[in-house]
Amino acid sequence: MPTDSLRVLQYGLGPIGQAAARTVLEKEPLTLVGAVDIDPAKAGRDVADLVDGEAASTGVHVSDEAESALADGAPDVVLHTTTSFLEGVTDQLVQCARAGAHVVSSTEELSFPFRRSPDRAERLDRVAREEGVTVVGTGVNPGYAMDVVPLMATSGCTDVRAVHVERVVDAGERRDPLQAKVGAGLSPQAFEDKKAGGGFGHIGLRESLHMMADGLGWSLGGVEEELRPVRADAPVDTGYRRVEPGAVAGIHHTAEGRVDGESRLTLDLKMFVGADASYDAVTVDGVPPIDLRFQGGIFGDTATVGMLVNMAPRVADAPPGLHTMADLPVPRAFATSPAADA
Amino acid sequence: MPTDSLRVLQYGLGPIGQAAARTVLEKEPLTLVGAVDIDPAKAGRDVADLVDGEAASTGVHVSDEAESALADGAPDVVLHTTTSFLEGVTDQLVQCARAGAHVVSSTEELSFPFRRSPDRAERLDRVAREEGVTVVGTGVNPGYAMDVVPLMATSGCTDVRAVHVERVVDAGERRDPLQAKVGAGLSPQAFEDKKAGGGFGHIGLRESLHMMADGLGWSLGGVEEELRPVRADAPVDTGYRRVEPGAVAGIHHTAEGRVDGESRLTLDLKMFVGADASYDAVTVDGVPPIDLRFQGGIFGDTATVGMLVNMAPRVADAPPGLHTMADLPVPRAFATSPAADA
Repeated sequence: MPTDSLRVLQYGLGPIGQAAARTVLEKEPLTLVGAVDIDPAKAGRDVADLVDGEAASTGVHVSDEAESALADGAPDVVLHTTTSFLEGVTDQLVQCARAGAHVVSSTEELSFPFRRSPDRAERLDRVAREEGVTVVGTGVNPGYAMDVVPLMATSGCTDVRAVHVERVVDAGERRDPLQAKVGAGLSPQAFEDKKAGGGFGHIGLRESLHMMADGLGWSLGGVEEELRPVRADAPVDTGYRRVEPGAVAGIHHTAEGRVDGESRLTLDLKMFVGADASYDAVTVDGVPPIDLRFQGGIFGDTATVGMLVNMAPRVADAPPGLHTMADLPVPRAFATSPAADA
Repeated sequence: MPTDSLRVLQYGLGPIGQAAARTVLEKEPLTLVGAVDIDPAKAGRDVADLVDGEAASTGVHVSDEAESALADGAPDVVLHTTTSFLEGVTDQLVQCARAGAHVVSSTEELSFPFRRSPDRAERLDRVAREEGVTVVGTGVNPGYAMDVVPLMATSGCTDVRAVHVERVVDAGERRDPLQAKVGAGLSPQAFEDKKAGGGFGHIGLRESLHMMADGLGWSLGGVEEELRPVRADAPVDTGYRRVEPGAVAGIHHTAEGRVDGESRLTLDLKMFVGADASYDAVTVDGVPPIDLRFQGGIFGDTATVGMLVNMAPRVADAPPGLHTMADLPVPRAFATSPAADA
């Protein structure tokens, strides 16, 4: 167990980054030593102004200049929450590693970059090894619910023929940006237009599929992804927005991995307003069969922050390099109430 | 991913060891290179005679002499399934490590030996490091259902106040030795006598509790264990044995860990004939709350074998030393049907 204090820099202060910074401030073994965001409305302000916590002042001011913030803060770990795509963030991650910091990032494409971005993955791994630091992409999905949990569900199987993962998220319980992100309130035509424009739908299904296939040692012959709208069959008012019957309530995004032409891995994700209940389910067609369910689901707004912060001590203890959640020791919560008492 | 062939020696050929040997024979990347059992009825026989599989002959004969079997077989990994208690097996494990083999053992007390047997743990860790091999204790329980799974369930929590784990096993679906082990058919008085004699009840609850506490960084102030009978309220006929109403149907074994006087970790295990259904459930009193359930449970006879065999490539890839399942990368199935196709 790492018991020493860890110096943490928060890179990116959107909603998830702000919540991560607040959690870092609350956890006694963690010390917030820096914060970075390029938003001019945030730069220069005390982090306490941005996070919804008890601290009147943290003494840590938001910098819009990562290099000097990294040099001044000398963090052990950077919690990185800027965008979903590797293209935009590889340089940011390299900069953190060159500053000697381990990195835990919410960048979805970083969760398993070896298939879709082998060059960037190779660069990140090389830099991380040169600097003796660990880099990992994590979050609830990808990083846990639809990859690490199903892999873990197969642990006791002497054979596995197929794995089916289903995640239903009642977007009405989530913050408004997520409701917007899944298209709640769009007309069916606007949904199709948005889909045709690209960058719509959940980011990370393909990464989850590849992480599972790699973990099971399966060579996927084909991967098919499909994005459809979920239509509201009754009016839904989330408090943020109202969705009329027939309008789009959210997304139904699926990915399927085949081996030798047979469907072996399926990921089925529904995120929409008006869902009866959220849940996460894993069915393993194996010996023995496994039927695992998170009743009520894994609440993403909070749990993404939890995954990021809880991985801080794990990357600090891991061997250098670019890793996936499946390569690192079993994740678990860190510095919780009873630990703080003890 | 380890893709090379691994040489495996099966140490202990009771029911679990026999099933493990059969699974090793079935998995293409694994080669059975030796088998050890002290039972004179088994020594000298071809492993194919003992395992319920397709092979007419394996060419591997059971040896009652571990040292020569280890020297002759030169295994990469030993799957060790002899007894539950460290006292009886530490020398066996040391012998395997000295022969340069990684060890995956079903010895329950090995799953987290640091609290109850610190001297033996220190010796095993030292020898393993000296020899450059990895030693781990695993199984379904301890090693997964009541420790690794609940730890994993807390991964996304920004706070955890308590974790409750419940496992219900319908012993009527399991092999007869398990039904005998849980006391099915005993009179209530015979149950109490057996309990007073010691060594009765499930082995490993304390290890699971300590593994969870260690994983969460909680210092347990007290641990309480309780073993009670489950009484049959209707007649049960399992095919192996008949249990009359009022007689003992099995065990209800609980363990509780306290931090600062408050109950924070509870393990509740019922193994009895006549259970309505088997299941494994984890409730995390945390932020967010987690309610996880394996419907139908994790079938122990098969899954214990799965855990052992699936850990073979993981120990071969791990840093040297004595580890727990919580220190090693997320477990998952190995060399399953689609992988074999690929």
